[in-house]
Amino acid sequence: VAANSFGSIFRITTWGESHGKAMGVVIDGCPAGLELTEEEIEEALAKRRPGTSVWVSPRKEEDKPQILSGLYEGKTTGAPLSILVWNRDADSSKYSAFKELYRPGHSNYTYEKKYGVVDERGGGRSSARETLCRVAAGAVAEKLLSYYGIKVSAFLYQMGPYTCRKEIMEDPSLIAKAKESALFFPDATLVEEVIKAIEKAKAEGDSWGGSVAFYVEKMPVGLGDPVYEKLEANLAKILLSLPASKAFEIGEGIAAASMRGSFHNDSFVMRNQQIETKSNHAGGVLGGISTGMPLFGKVVFKPPSGILKTQQTVSKEGKEVFVSLPEGSRHDPCVAIRAVPVVEACVKIVLADALLLNRAARL
Amino acid sequence: VAANSFGSIFRITTWGESHGKAMGVVIDGCPAGLELTEEEIEEALAKRRPGTSVWVSPRKEEDKPQILSGLYEGKTTGAPLSILVWNRDADSSKYSAFKELYRPGHSNYTYEKKYGVVDERGGGRSSARETLCRVAAGAVAEKLLSYYGIKVSAFLYQMGPYTCRKEIMEDPSLIAKAKESALFFPDATLVEEVIKAIEKAKAEGDSWGGSVAFYVEKMPVGLGDPVYEKLEANLAKILLSLPASKAFEIGEGIAAASMRGSFHNDSFVMRNQQIETKSNHAGGVLGGISTGMPLFGKVVFKPPSGILKTQQTVSKEGKEVFVSLPEGSRHDPCVAIRAVPVVEACVKIVLADALLLNRAARL
Amino acid sequence: VAANSFGSIFRITTWGESHGKAMGVVIDGCPAGLELTEEEIEEALAKRRPGTSVWVSPRKEEDKPQILSGLYEGKTTGAPLSILVWNRDADSSKYSAFKELYRPGHSNYTYEKKYGVVDERGGGRSSARETLCRVAAGAVAEKLLSYYGIKVSAFLYQMGPYTCRKEIMEDPSLIAKAKESALFFPDATLVEEVIKAIEKAKAEGDSWGGSVAFYVEKMPVGLGDPVYEKLEANLAKILLSLPASKAFEIGEGIAAASMRGSFHNDSFVMRNQQIETKSNHAGGVLGGISTGMPLFGKVVFKPPSGILKTQQTVSKEGKEVFVSLPEGSRHDPCVAIRAVPVVEACVKIVLADALLLNRAARL
Amino acid sequence: VAANSFGSIFRITTWGESHGKAMGVVIDGCPAGLELTEEEIEEALAKRRPGTSVWVSPRKEEDKPQILSGLYEGKTTGAPLSILVWNRDADSSKYSAFKELYRPGHSNYTYEKKYGVVDERGGGRSSARETLCRVAAGAVAEKLLSYYGIKVSAFLYQMGPYTCRKEIMEDPSLIAKAKESALFFPDATLVEEVIKAIEKAKAEGDSWGGSVAFYVEKMPVGLGDPVYEKLEANLAKILLSLPASKAFEIGEGIAAASMRGSFHNDSFVMRNQQIETKSNHAGGVLGGISTGMPLFGKVVFKPPSGILKTQQTVSKEGKEVFVSLPEGSRHDPCVAIRAVPVVEACVKIVLADALLLNRAARL
Repeated sequence: VAANSFGSIFRITTWGESHGKAMGVVIDGCPAGLELTEEEIEEALAKRRPGTSVWVSPRKEEDKPQILSGLYEGKTTGAPLSILVWNRDADSSKYSAFKELYRPGHSNYTYEKKYGVVDERGGGRSSARETLCRVAAGAVAEKLLSYYGIKVSAFLYQMGPYTCRKEIMEDPSLIAKAKESALFFPDATLVEEVIKAIEKAKAEGDSWGGSVAFYVEKMPVGLGDPVYEKLEANLAKILLSLPASKAFEIGEGIAAASMRGSFHNDSFVMRNQQIETKSNHAGGVLGGISTGMPLFGKVVFKPPSGILKTQQTVSKEGKEVFVSLPEGSRHDPCVAIRAVPVVEACVKIVLADALLLNRAARL
Repeated sequence: VAANSFGSIFRITTWGESHGKAMGVVIDGCPAGLELTEEEIEEALAKRRPGTSVWVSPRKEEDKPQILSGLYEGKTTGAPLSILVWNRDADSSKYSAFKELYRPGHSNYTYEKKYGVVDERGGGRSSARETLCRVAAGAVAEKLLSYYGIKVSAFLYQMGPYTCRKEIMEDPSLIAKAKESALFFPDATLVEEVIKAIEKAKAEGDSWGGSVAFYVEKMPVGLGDPVYEKLEANLAKILLSLPASKAFEIGEGIAAASMRGSFHNDSFVMRNQQIETKSNHAGGVLGGISTGMPLFGKVVFKPPSGILKTQQTVSKEGKEVFVSLPEGSRHDPCVAIRAVPVVEACVKIVLADALLLNRAARL
Repeated sequence: VAANSFGSIFRITTWGESHGKAMGVVIDGCPAGLELTEEEIEEALAKRRPGTSVWVSPRKEEDKPQILSGLYEGKTTGAPLSILVWNRDADSSKYSAFKELYRPGHSNYTYEKKYGVVDERGGGRSSARETLCRVAAGAVAEKLLSYYGIKVSAFLYQMGPYTCRKEIMEDPSLIAKAKESALFFPDATLVEEVIKAIEKAKAEGDSWGGSVAFYVEKMPVGLGDPVYEKLEANLAKILLSLPASKAFEIGEGIAAASMRGSFHNDSFVMRNQQIETKSNHAGGVLGGISTGMPLFGKVVFKPPSGILKTQQTVSKEGKEVFVSLPEGSRHDPCVAIRAVPVVEACVKIVLADALLLNRAARL
Repeated sequence: VAANSFGSIFRITTWGESHGKAMGVVIDGCPAGLELTEEEIEEALAKRRPGTSVWVSPRKEEDKPQILSGLYEGKTTGAPLSILVWNRDADSSKYSAFKELYRPGHSNYTYEKKYGVVDERGGGRSSARETLCRVAAGAVAEKLLSYYGIKVSAFLYQMGPYTCRKEIMEDPSLIAKAKESALFFPDATLVEEVIKAIEKAKAEGDSWGGSVAFYVEKMPVGLGDPVYEKLEANLAKILLSLPASKAFEIGEGIAAASMRGSFHNDSFVMRNQQIETKSNHAGGVLGGISTGMPLFGKVVFKPPSGILKTQQTVSKEGKEVFVSLPEGSRHDPCVAIRAVPVVEACVKIVLADALLLNRAARL
């Protein structure tokens, strides 16, 4: 079953709780011969680190990854890579106030009912800190993808009421501007309003939903394995396994529901003696297999549940109560922002696996 | 890897091409002792059969399932169930016209690039006929779910420009009306307009996108296995592995992106000495585990690609050409309609597996 | 879990009971582009067919396989191959006498305790007839292996008290003589005595144990994936999943327990500018990875439990009783004989999978 | 594929190289609610520690395990358990002499051919030190088994020319004496000769093969999942994935090859109103499912390859050379001895998994 693993050949297994001793990921099936350094992983982790901006939860961790196995003289050996990060800033005292309550929008209720025993400190296993392991694995996957010239980007597509201009979605030069923004938001015409809206929500002790888009350039044709291992099926699975995620779209996604076939169908054309499609409403997949056109889609995140406003709930003894987080609690006004590097990593993990699987497709 | 399998314990493996000799599914891991008949599966298949209404592709097949193994004196034995349906109405001649072309929106391009050898007759392995196997497996899963009192429904939520009233989404008595409609559309105030729109698209040789909602009553708390086997992650995976699917939503789905946490959070309350949530924006899951509230979500389908209108494309020799299906070709104006029983089956498969997995969660 | 599947990429799923309607195998992950015919599979099945000699159980079945999917214009397409064989000669009446008893050495006791429901007709799912599916899959695997020049043989190594001369084990020209023998026994100096011993056991209503050896020529170096997917670990697993199998050996096997390292170690030498080992006590693997030397080993089968002699047992009501099979019952004096083509097939399945997996080992 | 994982529900993933920074195991699928301490794991590791006797390789490590996740207030939470042990005594200098050679009986040849990059220090990933991770996981599995009253033992069955008296194999009170012996050898009548033979081999710079037996009391009936997940198939797989293992036997094992059915068949009898078998030649399984009788079998280990005697081999440049380990090199005269706790752990891992799987067997 392996509920904490993802992937078929390039396969990750993550472990660790938010306030446990450490977090880690074991990557099995990474091909031998890949050059890799701890610095590359650290750099990737730095991008997702909470505390890098005012808009995200101010936990300060160094997140210094150690590669404990699978690497020899700077190259992967084919043996499993074990990457570990110690947890340092784990003050659980703030959470003790909630030990006797089911927190609205949180999973301590379902974990308790399922497992009986729950490590609630900082969300325990359900914490977004698990995504650190995906980012570490994504950095390894990226080394493999870059060997094939594949380039994955992600950016903040929607923050509450604000949505990127649609033309950005298919223009890599516009998407690249997301890197310049602390919000990973590529639409300069809106960024100031977005910041104001976040700050307002934060001041009010409230939060916003949002969405993150991914975009892959230089996609090879042929990745993805029908029927149940379609490329978009695996993308959907890994992204819907992210904390707080509520929807997944490939290509036009939900918009396709109100389109006509004559509009949505992408005509094949010849460009530079190569087959391409004129439009790319499909988002780079047909029949679950990549077309070679850019692969793009989105994942939606709900507004973070850990708000400061007073909320109604039930105690573990079954009494209805009202609860509010103590003033000054760590509080993330929009989880989609710091999900950007995580979504990018997840897409990389899926593509690395699909690349390796594809080697077995033909005689 | 097992690209044609889905599930961990209750595990299906499907096989067969649209115009091959037969289609089939092997269900491994179904518990022993379940009463089951071929009639129950046939009844389930009858619901998805193309040709049952004017709005869906007029292929007429009997789809009479045979249970070839795993059943003894009317009960499952714990051995794999093999269910087979012969293909009868498989006239491939219509497709030969397209043998030299890459069809816009179809997968013959990607299959050829990936595999080199492609059975294009009727879409081959990429045909929606594969979903027959899911419906058969869903009928088996339902027997297990009904033992636990769980009830899964699905209905047409959106057909092109027409969307159900939102209150239907959470009212089982309104959802039940979908059964009375040949379209599986529960909103009587709109159904005539929907029919007209479909007929108009059909007459024009065009098609519409749409979406299908699922809704599960009497959900137990505790189903779903974090981190990577979250309930919604597996729902997303199986639904995004359906032909033509482009998006998945759980609970509020995409709408959550523009919500505030203070609105989206579902308060816990006591009802009849049971813990419930006041609202159910989450759609019945927290942290990837079912809350016991109704489980609901949606899957979006693109407009069918097989339209009669003339389209631009490229021949296998790399020449740009224009193509149109011959007059009177089989042509499905909205795939979401006949996807309704398929989505229902997919949800059942995921839940049956989660139920069995959950038995191992505790000492 | 997939208890009826084997393999990672080249993956088989078998189904069917001895006296059910049919037996079948679904092969997922076979590369596209492999030429394949039903005749090739039928030919492989013919070799294992019971009834081909006086020494094996006289069930007469045609075992005409049908390839129902995954093949197009004579080539595999990358889609799952579904192969089906109808059961014809399934006279269950003989078995009804045992319905109320636990048969010594049989699995109806354990199946009943585990599953509650048991299809006992002819052994049901536990019947050796399941191995027909492995032979069919092995015929497909062989097509892949022969593309790489790999050649797998199997032969009867031991029949009760008679064991092949040891030098045969490593001499392909001697092993080839097994093909000439109806017993698959390569040692002409012993074959008459073996036949007499089998006939004597049969006449006495008794049976003999035995063992089957496999030998692979032209092995590539590098197959097998440490740590848990070592080549010999997967060979052991598939062979110990055969009915009646009780032991597995790779290379010297059990004999290695009483050897010295200075004798057992195989020295590396140069032969024709290639690295080889002087001896091959290891049997072609080091560290779970093939060395390129011949791969060989053995699997031991217990004497068939279905003997005609009177035996003590317990009825399902818990009474101690004595039981004997009716005169003239189908009765197999040495299962190892007809296991020969099955063992060969199992080895092919393991190697086909290891070959495909190995494509992902390096950058 | 997950070559470094084993198990379906109770699933281990191990990582680490002999002279890398650390070794570790992630255990996924352990039920919540199990009491567990680091001390229990440390105690298990102490038993396998090299250096505890003169007969095993004198590496001195403390092997102090840390449980980094999955445990809260002394109980498992259902989240993955990550257990780590730092490598301390890792002097690789001794190995540098071999960097340019393929060592007879070692895997550096096959690893290099397969992966291109090899961490040869102390055997790298192929080192027996990986088994430390199995022992740690076995200690966790034991907690689960002991909850069901199941008791697993292992002991040295054969050391080179010396084999236990056969009656020991089925007498738990005799098996228990193995605990008193530094060799884990239960046969007091032979133990002095065994010690002398080991010391002689060591003095000569040579080594002996051997075998380890396992024996399980209080087995429940019903464990094991036919066809491919038979109990003995999984035991064979995990034991054949141990370094240096060459054969596996269940019940009579190889001896069954020369037995008659009338002897080998175990009659069912009533004992204390329970069904048992009179004899237990089967070793506790029928049809791949446990009978409730003691489960027993053996695994054979080759003589360790790392001997001090001069041996012929080939350099990486393809020259034939002679090689001998430097005087005083770490050198293990019989790996079977220290494999005893490892075999015991492997059996526990298989049984824990089978126990959890069995919960899904029936409605």
